[in-house]
Amino acid sequence: MITGKNTIGTLNSARGTDTFKTFNPVENRENPWVFHQATKDEIDQAVQLATEAFGQYKNFSGKRKAEFLRAIADEIEEIGEDLITTYMAESGLPEGRARGERGRTMVQLRAFADLLEEGSWVEATIDVGQADKEPMPKPDIRKMLFPIGPVAVFGASNFPLAFSTAGGDTASALAAGCPVIVKGHPLHAATGELVSSAILKAAEKTNMPNGVFSNLNSSGISVGQELVQHPEIKAVGFTGSIAGGTAIYKLASTREVPIPVFAEMGSVNPVVVLPSAFEQSAHWAKQYALSITNGTGQFCTNPGLILGVKGDDFTQFIGTLGEEIAQISPASMLHPNIYKAFEKGIEVVTASGKTSLVGAYKGEAAPNFGKAKVLTVDADVFIANPALHHEVFGPYSLVVQCDSDQELEAAINALEGQLTGTLLGNSKELSEKTSIVDALKEKVGRLILNGVPTGVEVCAAMHHGGPFPSTTNAKYTSVGVSAITRWTRPVAYQNWPLELLPEALQNENPLKIHRIVDGIHTFNTI
Amino acid sequence: MITGKNTIGTLNSARGTDTFKTFNPVENRENPWVFHQATKDEIDQAVQLATEAFGQYKNFSGKRKAEFLRAIADEIEEIGEDLITTYMAESGLPEGRARGERGRTMVQLRAFADLLEEGSWVEATIDVGQADKEPMPKPDIRKMLFPIGPVAVFGASNFPLAFSTAGGDTASALAAGCPVIVKGHPLHAATGELVSSAILKAAEKTNMPNGVFSNLNSSGISVGQELVQHPEIKAVGFTGSIAGGTAIYKLASTREVPIPVFAEMGSVNPVVVLPSAFEQSAHWAKQYALSITNGTGQFCTNPGLILGVKGDDFTQFIGTLGEEIAQISPASMLHPNIYKAFEKGIEVVTASGKTSLVGAYKGEAAPNFGKAKVLTVDADVFIANPALHHEVFGPYSLVVQCDSDQELEAAINALEGQLTGTLLGNSKELSEKTSIVDALKEKVGRLILNGVPTGVEVCAAMHHGGPFPSTTNAKYTSVGVSAITRWTRPVAYQNWPLELLPEALQNENPLKIHRIVDGIHTFNTI
Repeated sequence: MITGKNTIGTLNSARGTDTFKTFNPVENRENPWVFHQATKDEIDQAVQLATEAFGQYKNFSGKRKAEFLRAIADEIEEIGEDLITTYMAESGLPEGRARGERGRTMVQLRAFADLLEEGSWVEATIDVGQADKEPMPKPDIRKMLFPIGPVAVFGASNFPLAFSTAGGDTASALAAGCPVIVKGHPLHAATGELVSSAILKAAEKTNMPNGVFSNLNSSGISVGQELVQHPEIKAVGFTGSIAGGTAIYKLASTREVPIPVFAEMGSVNPVVVLPSAFEQSAHWAKQYALSITNGTGQFCTNPGLILGVKGDDFTQFIGTLGEEIAQISPASMLHPNIYKAFEKGIEVVTASGKTSLVGAYKGEAAPNFGKAKVLTVDADVFIANPALHHEVFGPYSLVVQCDSDQELEAAINALEGQLTGTLLGNSKELSEKTSIVDALKEKVGRLILNGVPTGVEVCAAMHHGGPFPSTTNAKYTSVGVSAITRWTRPVAYQNWPLELLPEALQNENPLKIHRIVDGIHTFNTI
Repeated sequence: MITGKNTIGTLNSARGTDTFKTFNPVENRENPWVFHQATKDEIDQAVQLATEAFGQYKNFSGKRKAEFLRAIADEIEEIGEDLITTYMAESGLPEGRARGERGRTMVQLRAFADLLEEGSWVEATIDVGQADKEPMPKPDIRKMLFPIGPVAVFGASNFPLAFSTAGGDTASALAAGCPVIVKGHPLHAATGELVSSAILKAAEKTNMPNGVFSNLNSSGISVGQELVQHPEIKAVGFTGSIAGGTAIYKLASTREVPIPVFAEMGSVNPVVVLPSAFEQSAHWAKQYALSITNGTGQFCTNPGLILGVKGDDFTQFIGTLGEEIAQISPASMLHPNIYKAFEKGIEVVTASGKTSLVGAYKGEAAPNFGKAKVLTVDADVFIANPALHHEVFGPYSLVVQCDSDQELEAAINALEGQLTGTLLGNSKELSEKTSIVDALKEKVGRLILNGVPTGVEVCAAMHHGGPFPSTTNAKYTSVGVSAITRWTRPVAYQNWPLELLPEALQNENPLKIHRIVDGIHTFNTI
């Protein structure tokens, strides 16, 4: 049963009078549950509990934290069909997506558990001391990563499970040893409450300290602002819009003690079509029509920009893409406001009078259902109009037609930072058109060949983080196990008693982890 | 011969009319050379050249970049005695320090060359694709670190060689593959010019692209501000004051496209004296008198704060420390302004009427020579007066006397972030006083047992970077080879043709480096 309360440690709390409801965009009506926005007191209490919990939780072994993460995954599964129906009622996303995203959420939690059990993620680096070294003794120095403290996580509108309450940011922060306070996304507060209760059950079953997790309801920006400015919050994870992420980043950077913000924001994910791709013109047109409309276009890696050099082949590809797009049935967007922003975004682009239509779904659609549209523009116009470079969140893409490879390269150079960049082509083209490939590489966090950018594999080699404004910190990924290092910092021990060092740094290497010892990568003892 | 010109790529340039001189603090007079501050045009030109150079330099092999770094070290050695005398004339630091710092500068350059030749620093991570995986093929994903682009380095007043022109920031950025533009420190512009010419010779001998290095003269803040705000500058390295570093951090964070700033700033490097240390009371008193006055107290790891619990032993230690301090002959500070700031800092602390004298050098001193002083204060007064927590740059330390372990812990908790924290004591005390050790660990980047914080070993395990305000980014070190990752970001390749991947990511592992392949740490081929 949904209570509408905040989860503050083990407490269900509803001290505030500001309430809100979530919305079912498919049925175009409010959901029944009433949520109480967290008050300043409740925020303070959650942070206070998290700070106290950190004192214990940070010292828990990888094995214990892994048990907690696995228990969370199990408890999420345990919720059963309630989670699927609630997810659908609050997001308008279809059942297959709900099940897939739930699966991915559990995969992520278990991947971090695996990482903790293996243990090498702490980057143990050891320089063994030499007391008899001339002219001076060399000190013994050993460093590894430690958790930084309570983390605030902002849930994402478009991933009610995999990037929200128990999503990638929460899983990676808990894995690192940091308590988490989630500022739940207002669009899916009930989904968040169900997942929060699963986390709480898992915390109880595995004897985690009270305050290791809290979930705060919020319909405006004040709860998030309070959290980001709270002196005891040590880092922020965010998935959402450029405006939202940038505002949080600036707030965090101008605190008395600035804290890091790992915000994954907007991206148009440029796709460069090279001539050989036209050998499979119909195939790619169909694949891209599907990718542009996947999840009703509400993915951070949605291909919002397709670039190529003018010619009969490209014209034909564009034509087929238009035909394919016209056949994609509309689907619900996450919320009427997101639907309206999508319509408005398209309107702004078309009202510029600088684009022409490639293809669009022409039929009727239910309220809040996004109708796919693809437009096209000449590269010179595109380059001169930065307003055309921005993401339109929804089933939309813009085809940029270039006069030459030089203009194609100039169009890429004009772009902002991106999560991904895709090339359709063959090896010969890649090795000949190095300046185009290189220009694209400088703009992105992931380079894809002959595929679509939607679909982000959860694995160690994944990098889901590109130059600003796609993220606020291009060094870090929010997908895959490398995401754990965001919530850590190294501490070096100098001439510490060997028996009092953390296990990861002891001579015997009791955790049997990978370390760098005197510059050598090794699993050996010292 | 010192020309006073800026080094802009291969060009010596002096287009500006704003000039300045450096100062010999030992002889208390200006040095003869006249330096031309860089103009806006010269800054733009340096950045433009660096951007062009990046296009080539970023693709150079580790071996080629290592040759360049080794050649820089050789050319610095080649300058010979001129560098030593110029260093001394501009810093007032003694000959032994000049030679030692030159040696360290070369050690650093060669350590990064070694790192590049070994090659594993790129953190290659590979998840091999599985085309036949059900229900979906698993893409092949391979990521590694790449350089981010032109870097601005701000030279440090207190390290004319090891943290300036060819110092740790420059060496690590060049190693990463990033061109460097140094904003020279105005106190040692001639030293900077000599080192710049050595870098230029090395660049020429090893066929580096024009613009891989530039050195800009500057006596005020405008050159630095222009550099930090230049759209083509991708990151900043800084060593200096909290005020300076924070200003640059805020400027960089509020750019249209924010960039990372790795600023190493102030620190008082707290030292906690536990009872067993009094068994060697005289030894530690002498060691600390030397550490406090090492380099006339002008080190970022100078022990500015000594904490202990009241008692006869502590009183005796303090008395001996006072006697030792009184015997330390004054030595030149870096500049009259730094000397004045030191005097002013001491005056502010004493004028508060809250401290009493432990010991001070009582004799006469030449102009600009810093006279060592140690004061003491009760912990309750210390905790209530944050003004006493700040660094006084020079040969000074404050002894904080606590009533109990609880008050000692409270005093530590009241501190800002620090580069280092030191404990004097034995294993038994460390294992009993866990909350004190833990409180200190949360505040620092390096925990030292039974030593002094001055002296920072250049090695892989060193972490020279603590919580704000000791640095702007506690995740990174500015000393040791790990410093290279500051100037990089990961890029992942998805389904890329194996033969077109960077060597570090190819199946054959031609560089024979450490990689993580399908989650396994290995040097093997695939």
